[in-house]
Amino acid sequence: MNQATIKYANLDEALHSVAAGGYEAIGLWREPVQEVGLAESARRLRDSGLRFTTLCRGGFFTMPEGPERRAAIDDNRRAIEETATLAAAGAPGSTAVYVLVAGGLPEGSRDVVDARARVADALAELAPEAQAAGVTLAIEPLHPMFASDRCVVTTLKQALDLAEPFAPEVVGVTVDTFHIWWDPEVLPQIARAGASGRIATYQVCDWKTPLPANVLNSRHYPGDGVIDFATLTAAVEATGYAGDVEVEIFNDDIWNAPYDEVVARTAETFGAAVGPHLALPVRTA
Amino acid sequence: MNQATIKYANLDEALHSVAAGGYEAIGLWREPVQEVGLAESARRLRDSGLRFTTLCRGGFFTMPEGPERRAAIDDNRRAIEETATLAAAGAPGSTAVYVLVAGGLPEGSRDVVDARARVADALAELAPEAQAAGVTLAIEPLHPMFASDRCVVTTLKQALDLAEPFAPEVVGVTVDTFHIWWDPEVLPQIARAGASGRIATYQVCDWKTPLPANVLNSRHYPGDGVIDFATLTAAVEATGYAGDVEVEIFNDDIWNAPYDEVVARTAETFGAAVGPHLALPVRTA
Repeated sequence: MNQATIKYANLDEALHSVAAGGYEAIGLWREPVQEVGLAESARRLRDSGLRFTTLCRGGFFTMPEGPERRAAIDDNRRAIEETATLAAAGAPGSTAVYVLVAGGLPEGSRDVVDARARVADALAELAPEAQAAGVTLAIEPLHPMFASDRCVVTTLKQALDLAEPFAPEVVGVTVDTFHIWWDPEVLPQIARAGASGRIATYQVCDWKTPLPANVLNSRHYPGDGVIDFATLTAAVEATGYAGDVEVEIFNDDIWNAPYDEVVARTAETFGAAVGPHLALPVRTA
Repeated sequence: MNQATIKYANLDEALHSVAAGGYEAIGLWREPVQEVGLAESARRLRDSGLRFTTLCRGGFFTMPEGPERRAAIDDNRRAIEETATLAAAGAPGSTAVYVLVAGGLPEGSRDVVDARARVADALAELAPEAQAAGVTLAIEPLHPMFASDRCVVTTLKQALDLAEPFAPEVVGVTVDTFHIWWDPEVLPQIARAGASGRIATYQVCDWKTPLPANVLNSRHYPGDGVIDFATLTAAVEATGYAGDVEVEIFNDDIWNAPYDEVVARTAETFGAAVGPHLALPVRTA
């Protein structure tokens, strides 16, 4: 379970709800961790008995050189350390994966090629620190409807091209069905990601239209939309990926529902739509 | 000018407003043409003195074989004839280009690969008729936010792959900045389209966020958003494309403004953002 699916839960609520729901692993977000503090978060994570999968999220480093860029790079450095600490605190099998969203076009810029070059620069700067900390940077291509304001990296191919100069355990990619299902190249690029050992995390949620007024929160439970999870998941598994599969849903209705209900429904829909063989036994309420 | 920019204008209003605005060419939509009838539309187009650029739009043939598919194919056959008739009625330099939007996932389907195969089938069925009529079918990749409900063809590369089995004068592509600006492959694919003689039409409008509640109508005047028209247009021109450039904007505010005002503003913004060398002298009001 990715914590963003129960966005309004604080760290304790998220850990308890997810563990009680029968899950074995959780992906955390920086804000609720910072609210409690890193050391205390690590303690509570350890107490939960859950594996740690990913820390979401950083990046946002498309701006030109200057104080704003330096602040962004420094913030990413801190997130690398947070990821290492949390992965060490999680149950055995935890993965030290830090999810990166590149950022959109800088204010006033129309130069998407330059913005992408700034992403490559940031990776080159952060990769040695990630390597030293034993953390994998997971570049996440976002759906092209976010290309201008959130992420100039729009395809798995592009994310893999950005990752290529680095060792796969240092820079990988986030494979998220919501963002890439539409891509005619998605299956060969999943194969390429797997062959180069760069699938750092596999995340699922569904796509459905019409989109809500805030397109950021247009994600759905697996099976409630049109994504062919069987085909995409089989492609990921065919590469040998055997890591956790995260469900990350941004949706106002789901965010406003009781956490335990969302946790249970996520497990049910995941089992039914993504794959019963991947689902954990879930305790009935 | 593409007629959709002044969507609520009937054929007469569109022809008069566009001609009075100093434009030399117009792209028409099927509905306002059918409202008047094809023969009468052709007469009025001839009287306007405008070149005809494209007929918008058809396609929508991703469904499996059956009566619904047959009806769609037949409707596209009629549109091919309409395109030929209108191109013959337009001023010298008119182009017989028929813009095709593939269609989304059929109701209840999650099989985007199959839907794309149905697009290839439809092209194979329609290409001989287009060839006989001297019409170019222009496959339009739409932005991936429309992939499920409107167009499973999402990239210029994919449109060109679909076009490849056919002669370039029979099956080409629609290059529309709004739909493809985000694509990391856009420049090489524009070059490929031009090298194979498949740029059937070049259309422009701008991308800006936040998107409105109805994302279909999220297009803007050139320059009001973040698209780098200089780079994209230079890439199109570098291929030798010397056809008309259409402005096609879906936007509720623009649709509700007086036609003459929209026609004038379109010319101004086009000249400023896309290229003064492409803009026509526009009569001042």
